[in-house]
Amino acid sequence: MPHPMFDKHRATLDAAVHAIHQRGYWSPYAESPSPRAYGDGADSAGKQAFDALLGQQFALEQPGQRGWLGGERSPYGATLEVSYPLCDMQTLLEAAQTAMAGWQDIGPDGRAGVCLEMLDRLNRHSFTLAHAVMMTTGQGWMMAFQAGGPHAQDRGLEAVAYGWREQSTIPAEAVWEKPQGKNPPLVMKKHFQIVGRGVAVVVGCGTFPTWNTYPGLFAALVTGNPVIIKPHSNAILPAALTVRVLREVLREQGLDPNLVSLFLGETRTDTQALVTHPAVASVDFTGSSVFGNWLLSNCRQARVYAELAGVNTVVIDSTDSYKAMLRNLAFTLSLYSGQMCTTTQAILVPADGIRTEDGPKSYDEVCADLAKAISGFLSKPEVAHAVLGAIQSADTLARIEDANAGRFGSVILPSQKLDNPDYPQAEVRTPVLLSCDATDDAAYMEERFGPISFVVKVANRADLPTLTERIVRTHGALTVGLYSSDPAMTDAVTAATVRSRVALSINLTGGVFVNQSAAYSDYHGTGGNPAANASYSNSAFVADRFCVVQRRYHL
Amino acid sequence: MPHPMFDKHRATLDAAVHAIHQRGYWSPYAESPSPRAYGDGADSAGKQAFDALLGQQFALEQPGQRGWLGGERSPYGATLEVSYPLCDMQTLLEAAQTAMAGWQDIGPDGRAGVCLEMLDRLNRHSFTLAHAVMMTTGQGWMMAFQAGGPHAQDRGLEAVAYGWREQSTIPAEAVWEKPQGKNPPLVMKKHFQIVGRGVAVVVGCGTFPTWNTYPGLFAALVTGNPVIIKPHSNAILPAALTVRVLREVLREQGLDPNLVSLFLGETRTDTQALVTHPAVASVDFTGSSVFGNWLLSNCRQARVYAELAGVNTVVIDSTDSYKAMLRNLAFTLSLYSGQMCTTTQAILVPADGIRTEDGPKSYDEVCADLAKAISGFLSKPEVAHAVLGAIQSADTLARIEDANAGRFGSVILPSQKLDNPDYPQAEVRTPVLLSCDATDDAAYMEERFGPISFVVKVANRADLPTLTERIVRTHGALTVGLYSSDPAMTDAVTAATVRSRVALSINLTGGVFVNQSAAYSDYHGTGGNPAANASYSNSAFVADRFCVVQRRYHL
Repeated sequence: MPHPMFDKHRATLDAAVHAIHQRGYWSPYAESPSPRAYGDGADSAGKQAFDALLGQQFALEQPGQRGWLGGERSPYGATLEVSYPLCDMQTLLEAAQTAMAGWQDIGPDGRAGVCLEMLDRLNRHSFTLAHAVMMTTGQGWMMAFQAGGPHAQDRGLEAVAYGWREQSTIPAEAVWEKPQGKNPPLVMKKHFQIVGRGVAVVVGCGTFPTWNTYPGLFAALVTGNPVIIKPHSNAILPAALTVRVLREVLREQGLDPNLVSLFLGETRTDTQALVTHPAVASVDFTGSSVFGNWLLSNCRQARVYAELAGVNTVVIDSTDSYKAMLRNLAFTLSLYSGQMCTTTQAILVPADGIRTEDGPKSYDEVCADLAKAISGFLSKPEVAHAVLGAIQSADTLARIEDANAGRFGSVILPSQKLDNPDYPQAEVRTPVLLSCDATDDAAYMEERFGPISFVVKVANRADLPTLTERIVRTHGALTVGLYSSDPAMTDAVTAATVRSRVALSINLTGGVFVNQSAAYSDYHGTGGNPAANASYSNSAFVADRFCVVQRRYHL
Repeated sequence: MPHPMFDKHRATLDAAVHAIHQRGYWSPYAESPSPRAYGDGADSAGKQAFDALLGQQFALEQPGQRGWLGGERSPYGATLEVSYPLCDMQTLLEAAQTAMAGWQDIGPDGRAGVCLEMLDRLNRHSFTLAHAVMMTTGQGWMMAFQAGGPHAQDRGLEAVAYGWREQSTIPAEAVWEKPQGKNPPLVMKKHFQIVGRGVAVVVGCGTFPTWNTYPGLFAALVTGNPVIIKPHSNAILPAALTVRVLREVLREQGLDPNLVSLFLGETRTDTQALVTHPAVASVDFTGSSVFGNWLLSNCRQARVYAELAGVNTVVIDSTDSYKAMLRNLAFTLSLYSGQMCTTTQAILVPADGIRTEDGPKSYDEVCADLAKAISGFLSKPEVAHAVLGAIQSADTLARIEDANAGRFGSVILPSQKLDNPDYPQAEVRTPVLLSCDATDDAAYMEERFGPISFVVKVANRADLPTLTERIVRTHGALTVGLYSSDPAMTDAVTAATVRSRVALSINLTGGVFVNQSAAYSDYHGTGGNPAANASYSNSAFVADRFCVVQRRYHL
């Protein structure tokens, strides 16, 4: 008997599977926070629901609770004062393992159906989630809504589609009949059971606490595993809301809610104890290369899916849309103050300048014009605040200071502190643009997370592809951009990105930006360079999260 | 334009993909070494081709050759004296990387077509390969032909089918068109290129130099990677023959033959240098847990697919076919002198005996009757030699001595040395059967590779499932068998094997044996217990061997 949630969501699942095969545009979750899409009053209801959480204990009814922990500091300076259940690790792990059996029993179809119900429910909470994401990460409102809500849900559904598809190719049973010449055939009945690998831990990041969490969360769930979310200490609320919604759906479905739980560590040691626990079979992580590499070295009992630091690069060779190119780059560098793992850091420009439709532009002109484009774009305060948001961490603030002081390169455009009238204590910073020489590896070939980028002077135009390849191979990247009107250069950079395994965006001059990736169509990360060992999403992201256990006997 | 080899083999590929979905019986490679299947004279031609290799240098025309190396010792005492090219590691690696570009260019369909041509060609060399496998591993002739030839080819084709299927779901290009309300839509053209991860090293084993090599070899090839085979030092010839055939097919197809090469190390250090080389992206290994765990710890740059040691278990609870059960077990324990990674080592029997159709049998009776069944089965010398083959390694011979001397447990049936009239120097040994108590973990809970098994006395019948689960979880297993006519016990052992992630065979009393697995139908290993982190074959075995690199631009 098909699971009722599978029946309910079958059309969406089929459409998602179709989408990942076609890779055109598709989404079941409206990205516009409009009443037409979400209903009248959804906005204010979401805001009220968010406000009602502030200053409160966020109950989750998880087992093993031994206290409350909180203390998120809003980059907007807002007061959150929410505290969350502090639960015993061993108790959560055992509860997760106990919950696994019932989750196993409903099979791949049942799990996919319940996952889609969870995503549907999260979608209805998009406004509340958006406020939580905005206030904990410093994202602007529109990004917090889109990336924190529907786009995160899309990435979750994408993982469900991949996970379900892989499982759907495995028959539950088979009859094996081998001819034996004149003798009767050998006949066996075989059963194939899909079994999750065990408890999955998803370690969230401080900047995209839903978008970077949902792929691993839903990939692990749909393939039969319980999940413990360990959120970033400054972005707990979006994870806690997610866990609450998921536990609610599980309860409604007669399933054990402890399949999904929230784990808070008081110290880093607590997190380390969790991810290295023998019961933990997989770890999904987004964050620093230091901790990511620690995970890869120390979680030997688990498969680690890690998205780490990188040096995203844009190559400017030539263009026939100079102004549009500068506008596009200005937006990319400004969006969420460059605090996206996909934001460009190194902009490679030939020392003898570039060709444009307005004639040649020298390296210095490109630097100056890009600085002007950024300043111009951010000159209207309402635009600036909507796009920039606020700076998420004290480390990033300090890095911006260092950049402004010329410690990483010559300052073309210094970062400015802006005052946000709505949030007087918000830490708002405009991008800082630096120049340096391509030989100055130490400056630009290290991730400088935040609104810090370099216009890198490259001695020979012919070196652009090889330098790009070296940056990606050595330091990793999630994105590379190219501006060129020369097919030979386009081919050379394409080949360089294929060899170094990084996604390439060519001549973006309109409403698509190198730092944006669309679920079902754009792979986020290739898994093939140091910036990430996995991709959102592909078969490899789901296929090793479960085993097939067979039994056979004669008929 | 479709690749000619894809067209030529399309029907076989489609049938293989159908087979892995249905998991019934199927094979395109005849397992009978009969003239009807392989043509008149194929047998003698294969033998002649094999004989012509003896005492010769086995030329492969690989780059960087700096000498010849050989020295395989036949377990049959036959003289081989074949020497093989000793090539510089760095040269082979660079040649492999160079060859990758052209392999890339023919795409997934072209690669699958060429892989099928390779398998087809290997199939035509099955007799020569069988002699090489037999003489290097000590397998009996029929097993050497079947497991070394068609069954190995089946496992290779199975990997091709999985690899091709995964790639075939990724479109080469897409148009992404996102509505923008009243404005024109955003439209992008996207290209998705499949790129192998890099050089694959396949480390062969001494007992199944083709069967355990072809899955990794063909999984890596079809997903776009060059392969370097590092054979076991005592089973080079089957690998060298394979490499020669593959290089010949590549040359015929106008492809760079250095895509596949043979690497011999003079010392273990040479192998370690190869597998830890930054250019090596994956390592497939079958063998000891010591070296396997060394690979997992040290090959941090590569994905390691490892099949290691385990303690395969059979549970005897009750039976209604006592004699047939004993016959089935006697064959399992005798086949290739227990030198299969799937051979049963621990036979769990309740201390108060079992129920049978002939009434109860005490623990001691089961021990004695099983010993009698083994002796009886091997009483005809021609059967004994055909089934037992010879002992592959000096370590196994020493272990048999230790077992005979009672060092691991009380001897129920000692191993005997038999004389093979065809090969007077062959090291032939019958199985040794030991008894021990379930509490004596140190005796039977360590892999004792070879024809050594334990009838383990289990205090309480009710402990059978939990003990099985503990053995598999702690020490790993590729196979578990169960004899029971009690549905409750069957359910309990089934649940135990699902929890510990191991394949279960129930009540085998006929022509199927617990240590045999059939390609396209039986998964070899679940990848979910310590005996193996991967499975022949499933999506996880192929999906992470390639990346997808995309590029996008506005239309």
